[in-house]
Amino acid sequence: MSEVSAALVRELRDKTGAGMMDCKRALGESNGDLGKAVVYLREKGLAAAAKRATRAASEGTVGSYIHAGGKIGVLIEVNCETDFVARTPEFGELVRNLAMQVAALGADYVKREDVPSERVAREREIYAGQVEGQGKPAAIVGKIVDGKLEKFYGETCLLDQPYIRDDKVKVVDLVQEAARKTGENVVVRRFSRFRLGQE
Amino acid sequence: MSEVSAALVRELRDKTGAGMMDCKRALGESNGDLGKAVVYLREKGLAAAAKRATRAASEGTVGSYIHAGGKIGVLIEVNCETDFVARTPEFGELVRNLAMQVAALGADYVKREDVPSERVAREREIYAGQVEGQGKPAAIVGKIVDGKLEKFYGETCLLDQPYIRDDKVKVVDLVQEAARKTGENVVVRRFSRFRLGQE
Repeated sequence: MSEVSAALVRELRDKTGAGMMDCKRALGESNGDLGKAVVYLREKGLAAAAKRATRAASEGTVGSYIHAGGKIGVLIEVNCETDFVARTPEFGELVRNLAMQVAALGADYVKREDVPSERVAREREIYAGQVEGQGKPAAIVGKIVDGKLEKFYGETCLLDQPYIRDDKVKVVDLVQEAARKTGENVVVRRFSRFRLGQE
Repeated sequence: MSEVSAALVRELRDKTGAGMMDCKRALGESNGDLGKAVVYLREKGLAAAAKRATRAASEGTVGSYIHAGGKIGVLIEVNCETDFVARTPEFGELVRNLAMQVAALGADYVKREDVPSERVAREREIYAGQVEGQGKPAAIVGKIVDGKLEKFYGETCLLDQPYIRDDKVKVVDLVQEAARKTGENVVVRRFSRFRLGQE
């Protein structure tokens, strides 16, 4: 293993949220190549996230965001594992950013698993109806329907939406980044959005 | 009609929210007796409120209140008739006080009319079961059940609850006072309350 600088370790930690010893080992194995070290950590990182996801997230914060002088309001609950993390400014910022996201774009569900199967079936029917009669092979029609359903999830499910402050990432990435940085399971549990005078 | 002082007119206006000419007339008819003037205005006042209540309240404010450092959050929509009134500090204060009320006591419904009839029937059954076999006459049992149902409304319906800052009045009085003062129909439309980690 080669020597690795503390600055590089910190950079890798900031990038991946992995532990210090893991980052040192990854950089050592990668001869100080940051890109390779990230790849090296990916499996570990994903394994850690999977392990985290099974842990109970019963602490957290209920936050709100009021937009346009009271015309739109959002209430949101985001869970983590400890009150300690819930009280950090970073967690508060995550909650606020998520509330702003919901205020700006709205959403029907937190995640795609929350969409009732009847609604998914109905959407599929509609999309199939849109392309039928165009003489396309069934396999192509299936792919088109899948694509349209993906677009539907990206509009109606909070976690699948493009993040309003950086549309190169999805909202789920924002949440997963917070999980990595805190080392805790972070879960958007529910939200409520009122638009003045509307449903 | 006797002469009435401007100070007394103002006091009556603050108390009832009635117009200046109505207050002058009421005090004149009551020989400057404030209590009698309030009684004199009541019918007028109630008539005005009833007329107000039929007017569309489609403006208003969505407000929120976060309690105990993010453990409890409330989102609430309160409607009035004009954006002008919605933007007044007094209306904002009403919304905030109502949100605090929901944060403190919780509620299942805005008003008793919102309680599903099946739930009312179930509550009535439970209460009747509690007093049956005590050999009480049916009329007395009916009164006891009515009393318990009233208590149920006072706990589960926001407008029927005692106001947390002054339990001599109900929340509905707070809303009606705002309607009188603004001269507009004021309606609590909906609220949402999240308590961390609970339903």
